[in-house]
This record gives sequence, structure tokens and C-alpha cells, in this order.
Amino acid sequence: MLEAICHRRSIREYTDEEIPIEQLREIVKAGIWAPSGLNNQPWRFVIVQSPEIRERLALQTHYGHIVKAAKALIAVYLNVEVMYDEVKDHQSAGACIQNILLAAEALNLGGVWLGQILKNKTEVNKILGLDEKHDLMAIVALGHPLHRDQKSKRKDISELLLKEL
Amino acid sequence: MLEAICHRRSIREYTDEEIPIEQLREIVKAGIWAPSGLNNQPWRFVIVQSPEIRERLALQTHYGHIVKAAKALIAVYLNVEVMYDEVKDHQSAGACIQNILLAAEALNLGGVWLGQILKNKTEVNKILGLDEKHDLMAIVALGHPLHRDQKSKRKDISELLLKEL
Repeated sequence: MLEAICHRRSIREYTDEEIPIEQLREIVKAGIWAPSGLNNQPWRFVIVQSPEIRERLALQTHYGHIVKAAKALIAVYLNVEVMYDEVKDHQSAGACIQNILLAAEALNLGGVWLGQILKNKTEVNKILGLDEKHDLMAIVALGHPLHRDQKSKRKDISELLLKEL
Repeated sequence: MLEAICHRRSIREYTDEEIPIEQLREIVKAGIWAPSGLNNQPWRFVIVQSPEIRERLALQTHYGHIVKAAKALIAVYLNVEVMYDEVKDHQSAGACIQNILLAAEALNLGGVWLGQILKNKTEVNKILGLDEKHDLMAIVALGHPLHRDQKSKRKDISELLLKEL
């Protein structure tokens, strides 16, 4: 688990192999098991495999090439009617998205968290046919990794751990 | 991994066994490996083992008994000078906290995400000796589980997965 957490990378290039819908639902279930304040479970999901809809979503972000290349997308939403605290509900969405990324990794898939598309979230809702009570948090692009050469860096713990008391 | 994600529970009762500082740093490192927008790594951490400081923090939340019972706390902060987008940075904090909880589980520890203490975050900063550029996101209480009987429930995927397209 610790290995998986530290070695997970954002995967942006994928093979042509499809992802079975059962695996996508399994990944969504991992998202659902994230913790939320008062266990309010504010998250909602849309799974997108349709190439036509991915084409339309691709136009809403600088990272359209990833949206098109991915074999599936999981759009993560908050239901604003269920929210109780903006900061904590956004944190819960983050915990949920992290579960989704880790679950994908566990199934030998690769994924990347796309946030830049939020600038066009109203348009995304129109494409997905969702009303305004659903607030887009992120789109996770998924596929079988074309390679695993992706590198990433983090600051050393000495810069981030402020104190031990 | 999928098992671990779905079977992790909030652990609020602990044995008297201490947690080695090396394990606490390992858990913080798992937090650091969360993804963040633009890889800005806005998170900062304070590890608290001192019983005196835990006593003082306990007075800042309804869940003071957990803060006192825990053998260690990890306070998770955002450095507001490093933030670039409030929603996305709060999501990243949530991903980071989820990694911390999963890492604790992987080390056979138990933890719980404490958010209610945020209502007294200014006071918490005073106790920990941090300036106002550090914005408290949560405190994670950790210890060796006294038992693992904790139950939790989630809505069925059919209520949360809005569409498959």
C-alpha cells in the first residue's frame, strides 16, 4: 500500500485496450468509500466511455488530447444540496478522487486527475445533461498505460514537516 | 489495495502502545505523495506526540477525548502563500489526508480525520506556534486500534452513479 501510494504516477498516454464497465464501477465504489464529514457522502459520478461525448468534452480543456486518448472518464461531482461545509466537502471530494486514482492503479490501469476543465464546468454539465445542483470537482481520465516511464518529484519531508512536538 | 480502501474504518479508541516517530514520518511521506494542482504541494505538517500539547488541543474540539486518547496527531495545513486555487488546494489537502489514513492502515495503525476542530483553528495555531500563513485543514488522530469492530455504511452505487454514457 505504501509502495502504491508513493509510486503512483499520473498516466496520460494509453493503449487501445478498453476498460470493462465492471472495473469502472469497482473504481467508483472505491471513491464512495472515502470518508466525508458527518458521512454526508456528497459525491456523485458519471462514467463516460462514449467517444462522441469524449470528443465534446475534449473541447472544454487544454488537455483535450488526454480526454480523447483515455478509454474512459469518471466525472466526479458534488451534489450541492447535500454539502454542509464548503472546505470540508471539497476535501472529501479530494479524498474520493485519490481513492479513484489508487483503485485504478490497483487494477493495473493508469489515470490522471484533470482539474483545468473546471473553468468550463457549466458547459461540461450541459454535455453530460446534468442540472446546476451538480458541481463538477474533477474529471479522472483512465486507460491502460502505454508506458510507466512517468517521473514525478516531491519536496523533501524536511521542507514540509514544520515541527515535531 | 481495493480491500484496504473499502475496509478502512475511522478508529477512535487506542491501546497505550506508542507509535515510533519513524512510522509517523512514513505516514507524512505518504501524504506528501498525494497529487496537487500544478504539483504545488501546498501541504505542511506538524506531528504531535506530547501529552501536554494534546491536552491543550483537546480543549478546542468536541472530540477532545479522541485527541487525548490518541498516541499521536498529525496536523495537516495548507501554506496559503503556495495556494493557487481554493477549491483545488482544498481537494489536494483531502487527497493528502486520505493517503495519511491509508498509510496508517497499512502500518496496522488506526486513525480518524478530525474536522470539527477547524472552528478553533486560530487557537490551534497559537498552541502549535504557527503563524497565520498556515491554514489548518484537519487533525488526524492516530494510535494502535483497541478493537476493529467499527462499522460504517455507504449509499449504494446505484444512488451515486448518475449516468453511464
